[in-house]
Amino acid sequence: MDRSGAVAQLRRVVEEFAARYLGSAECWCVGLSGGPDSLALTAVAAHLRPTTALIVDHGLQPDSAEVAETARAQAISLGCRDAQVVCVRVGTDGGLEAAARAARYAALAERRDGPVLLAHTLDDQAETVLLGLGRGSGPRSIAGMRPYDPPWCRPLLGVRRNVTHDACRELGLTAWQDPHNDDRRFTRTRLRQEVLPLLEDVLGGGVAEALARTATALREDTDLIDTIAARALTAAAAGSGLDTAALTALPGPVRRRVIRSWLLAGGATGLTDKQIRGVDALVTDWRGQGGVAVGSAFRGQRLFAGRRDGVLTLRLEPVAKPS
Amino acid sequence: MDRSGAVAQLRRVVEEFAARYLGSAECWCVGLSGGPDSLALTAVAAHLRPTTALIVDHGLQPDSAEVAETARAQAISLGCRDAQVVCVRVGTDGGLEAAARAARYAALAERRDGPVLLAHTLDDQAETVLLGLGRGSGPRSIAGMRPYDPPWCRPLLGVRRNVTHDACRELGLTAWQDPHNDDRRFTRTRLRQEVLPLLEDVLGGGVAEALARTATALREDTDLIDTIAARALTAAAAGSGLDTAALTALPGPVRRRVIRSWLLAGGATGLTDKQIRGVDALVTDWRGQGGVAVGSAFRGQRLFAGRRDGVLTLRLEPVAKPS
Repeated sequence: MDRSGAVAQLRRVVEEFAARYLGSAECWCVGLSGGPDSLALTAVAAHLRPTTALIVDHGLQPDSAEVAETARAQAISLGCRDAQVVCVRVGTDGGLEAAARAARYAALAERRDGPVLLAHTLDDQAETVLLGLGRGSGPRSIAGMRPYDPPWCRPLLGVRRNVTHDACRELGLTAWQDPHNDDRRFTRTRLRQEVLPLLEDVLGGGVAEALARTATALREDTDLIDTIAARALTAAAAGSGLDTAALTALPGPVRRRVIRSWLLAGGATGLTDKQIRGVDALVTDWRGQGGVAVGSAFRGQRLFAGRRDGVLTLRLEPVAKPS
Repeated sequence: MDRSGAVAQLRRVVEEFAARYLGSAECWCVGLSGGPDSLALTAVAAHLRPTTALIVDHGLQPDSAEVAETARAQAISLGCRDAQVVCVRVGTDGGLEAAARAARYAALAERRDGPVLLAHTLDDQAETVLLGLGRGSGPRSIAGMRPYDPPWCRPLLGVRRNVTHDACRELGLTAWQDPHNDDRRFTRTRLRQEVLPLLEDVLGGGVAEALARTATALREDTDLIDTIAARALTAAAAGSGLDTAALTALPGPVRRRVIRSWLLAGGATGLTDKQIRGVDALVTDWRGQGGVAVGSAFRGQRLFAGRRDGVLTLRLEPVAKPS
C-alpha cells in the first residue's frame, strides 16, 4: 500500500488515535452509514483491530433497508468480524436532523460492545462550529465535537473530507451518496454548499481548518473553566441554594457557570445567556429586584430563581394559563 | 425628544456606559468619520459632556479634506466645544485596512484630551468576530472588540447599525457615505454585504446578535485564563527561561498561555498555534526532540526555543540565507 496515499494517511491517523486514547482495548465498533467517510473509516479500522460495523437504518428514505444491507455486505468484505443493521424509529423532537441524530446515538450506545469509532471529519467539525455560532449560546456551543468522548471516538476530526473520498477510490469502494447531503432544506447542507465556500472565498482560504482549530482551543478553555466551576459549586452550596457571599468572590465566568450548573441540576431547561445573567445580577447587582423565571423539565411548571437572606433559591411554580 | 426614538435609545446607552466606566471624567473626545454611526454618537455625546470631535483625514480619497471639513462643521453645530481635523499618512503594512486603522488609532491617541468614544456597533462586532474566525488563531481572535479598553470607549457595541442611521434621520443629519463601505475589494465589505446576509438566511436570523454575544462570553473566559496565566508565568520563571516542572503542573490552556507570553516577551512575532503547541510538546511530550524556530522582531534573526536541563530556553540565531 502506498504510504503517501489517502488510505495510508487514514491508517496513521487512526493508529495514533488508538495509541493515545484507547490503549489496549481489544475490539471496537464503527458507525457505518455507507457514505464515503464511514466506509473509508471501516476499511481502515477493520485492518487494525477486530471490528463490528453498526449500520443504523433510520427508515427515512424508501431505499434505506437496501442501503443498509449494501453497507453491511461491504463491511464484511472489508474484513469486519461482524456487521449489524439496527432499525430505529425517528421522532420529531427538535427537527428531523436532531431527532435522527438522537435515535442514531441511542441505537449505537445500546448495540456497541466496545468503543465506537465515528467518521466525523474536519469539514463536519467546521460546519458544527458555524451551527453553534448561529445559536450564540456561548463558547460551549462553538467548541464543536470532542475527539474522544467515551464511548465515542472521532479519529478523523483533523482530516479533510476529500481524504476519505480519495481513500474510497484507492480501495475501489463505491460509497452511498446520501440524498440528504444535497437537500437544501437542511441547515447543514446549506452551510456546506453555500456558506463555507463563500467564507473561503471572502476570507482567502483555510477557513475550515481555522474553524476546527478554534473549536479545539475553545474546548480546552471551556473544559478548564468548567473544572474550576465544578469545585466552586460545591464550595458555594447552601442547602439546595447558593450562598451569594461565596458567589461574589468568584470571577464572572466561573460564577455564571456555577449558576448554570445549579439551575440545570434543579431541572431548568432551555436556559439562555440572558436568563443566566439575570440570575447573576441577583448576586452582583442586588437592588431587591424580583427573580428570574426559567423553563423547567416539569410539565405545566416553571422554575423561579430568587434571592432571600443572602441565598439564591429555586422554586417551582405553575405556569400561568392565559385567562 | 421622543423617549422611544433612536436618539433617546442612543442617549440611554451612552449614559449607562459613562456611569459604568467613566465615573466623573469631565470631558471626552469622539472619533468622527462623518458616517452615520459616528455622527449620531457625536450628537448624543455633545449633549452629555463637553466634547471634542477628532476627525481623521486618511488622505485616501480625492475628496477626503472636504469630507473632513464637513464633519468638523457638523460637530460644531451639534454642540461640540471643539472639532479638529487630523491628517495622517497611511502606510501599507498588513494591507490598506489595517494600515489605515493603525494610523487612525495613533492619531486619536496623540490628539485626545480624555477618553475617546468610538462608534463601533453590534454589526461591526459581528464582522470582527467573523474576521477572527477566518484567522483561526484561537479564542482571542474571535473575542472581538472590548467595550472599554482605555482610552477607547465603545458604548454602541450592543446597538444595531440601523439605530444610528435612524438617529441621523431623527436629527435631520446628512451623513457621509464612505464609498469604501461598498468596495468589494475589502474583506469587511464582503462580510457585511454577502456573508452575514447569507448566514442570517441559512441559520434563521439573529446571527449578528449571536456573534456579539459569543464575543462577550469568549472575552470573559479569555480574560480569566489570561489572569491565571499571568500569575503562573511569574511562578514558572527560571532566569530568562521557564521551569518545565512548574509548567507540567499547569492545565494545558494556562501552560500554553504562559509559553505564549514568554515567547512574546522574548521578542517573538507572528506566533502560530502550531508553534506554541510545538514548544508545549517540549514540556508534555519530551523525547529529546530539537526546538522550535519562531519569527522575531530582530532583523535577520529568528528565535529558537529549546529545552536544556529541565528549563525552556530562548536564543537568537541568524536566519540562514539561501545558498
